[in-house]
Amino acid sequence: MNGARLIGIGVGPGDPGLLTLNAIAALGEADVVAHFAKEGNASNARGIAAAHFKPGAEELPLLYPVTTEIPKQDAAYREAIRAFYDGAAEKIAARLDEGRTVAVIAEGDPLFYGSYMHLHVRLSARYPTEIVAGVTGMSGCWSEVGTPIAQGDDVFTVLPATLPEFELERRLADTDAAVVMKIGRHLPKVRRAIERAGRLDRAIYVERGTMANAAIMKLADKLDTPAPYFAMVLVPGWEGRP
Amino acid sequence: MNGARLIGIGVGPGDPGLLTLNAIAALGEADVVAHFAKEGNASNARGIAAAHFKPGAEELPLLYPVTTEIPKQDAAYREAIRAFYDGAAEKIAARLDEGRTVAVIAEGDPLFYGSYMHLHVRLSARYPTEIVAGVTGMSGCWSEVGTPIAQGDDVFTVLPATLPEFELERRLADTDAAVVMKIGRHLPKVRRAIERAGRLDRAIYVERGTMANAAIMKLADKLDTPAPYFAMVLVPGWEGRP
Repeated sequence: MNGARLIGIGVGPGDPGLLTLNAIAALGEADVVAHFAKEGNASNARGIAAAHFKPGAEELPLLYPVTTEIPKQDAAYREAIRAFYDGAAEKIAARLDEGRTVAVIAEGDPLFYGSYMHLHVRLSARYPTEIVAGVTGMSGCWSEVGTPIAQGDDVFTVLPATLPEFELERRLADTDAAVVMKIGRHLPKVRRAIERAGRLDRAIYVERGTMANAAIMKLADKLDTPAPYFAMVLVPGWEGRP
Repeated sequence: MNGARLIGIGVGPGDPGLLTLNAIAALGEADVVAHFAKEGNASNARGIAAAHFKPGAEELPLLYPVTTEIPKQDAAYREAIRAFYDGAAEKIAARLDEGRTVAVIAEGDPLFYGSYMHLHVRLSARYPTEIVAGVTGMSGCWSEVGTPIAQGDDVFTVLPATLPEFELERRLADTDAAVVMKIGRHLPKVRRAIERAGRLDRAIYVERGTMANAAIMKLADKLDTPAPYFAMVLVPGWEGRP
């Protein structure tokens, strides 16, 4: 196990220029680079960071068996995803047991709504583990839009779009600033909740923030067509600015 | 105004290795670098990023006239701080009017609880403006601790420690994960609110996350001595992990 080291690396929201110096240095030391993707899809994190992989590094794709095909409340979903993370952790452990340095690259920040943390809780007590913080997807989005999100004594809330409509409305009415994440097929529900919370006038819809093909518009102007899973809605706070 | 450009640059939470490639590139183009500090103190953002300033760049320190000496609710505080931001914006505008590129460096992310945004709202409609997103202080802290903060359908809330005790308690009991920021002299109140919300067992206190002299401990073990203004408390979510 000499030299075995697990590194969870945040690669930021999409623009390779938002990689940190520490992320690049850690990639230069990684004998193995693991990345998540859906079967048949390319890994977004890989696309952001691949230029910095050490020559000859082994790539270890970790392919989700299911994503949104089975409802999350379903026991079958939980079983499938648990078995997947267990198996992924054992693949990584096998490489750590050979004394190799294994990086797991994660879009955004590794410990903020990322798949990496499922490996972290399985492995960090068994192997020396480091985290390289990353720029989150939401920071990338409000920076691309150029809208201050929260200031001073604002309460800021991150809400998954999967919440029931009444919960979204209640929480949106009870916070100064918010980001609603994972919009996907939940767009009509999210818009209704934001409108009833009285926040539609300032809400902004963002697809693929920081990427070349980013789409930014007022939520009020967005059609009810399906949105990408990673789209988000920004509800800026900070009404009482000095 | 030929070439005039305002850039709000996030320099991350403290470790210079958490600067992004875009931040370094933007600093290399900046004729003027503005940074905030309290009169008589060094700018933290400057300490993180100074090695990347362009040789010969003009430094423009922006020194707060007041920070916590006057209560924020006081009209005198609001007047003093408004006049300060107005004056700072005009100093920057004068340099932009000469066609120079002006960077304002900000700890963490520029549009997330940062002073830069007071300049942004005063200047971004008048001059071409760009934002370079940064790693937030809170990402730096939970990465240093190595604790997953939020996952899946978690609701995540950022709470300023300045909130009344009952508000802190109510909101802590109503979220999956939270970060309480700007602890300073509010530590005893924050601890009571977290305990009454039933979250004390998992709460973690962090001072100077990502810096060489970081202090990390269970909130339950932290003495009620004054904490630094930038200390924070992490309340991890994610109880129902697969």
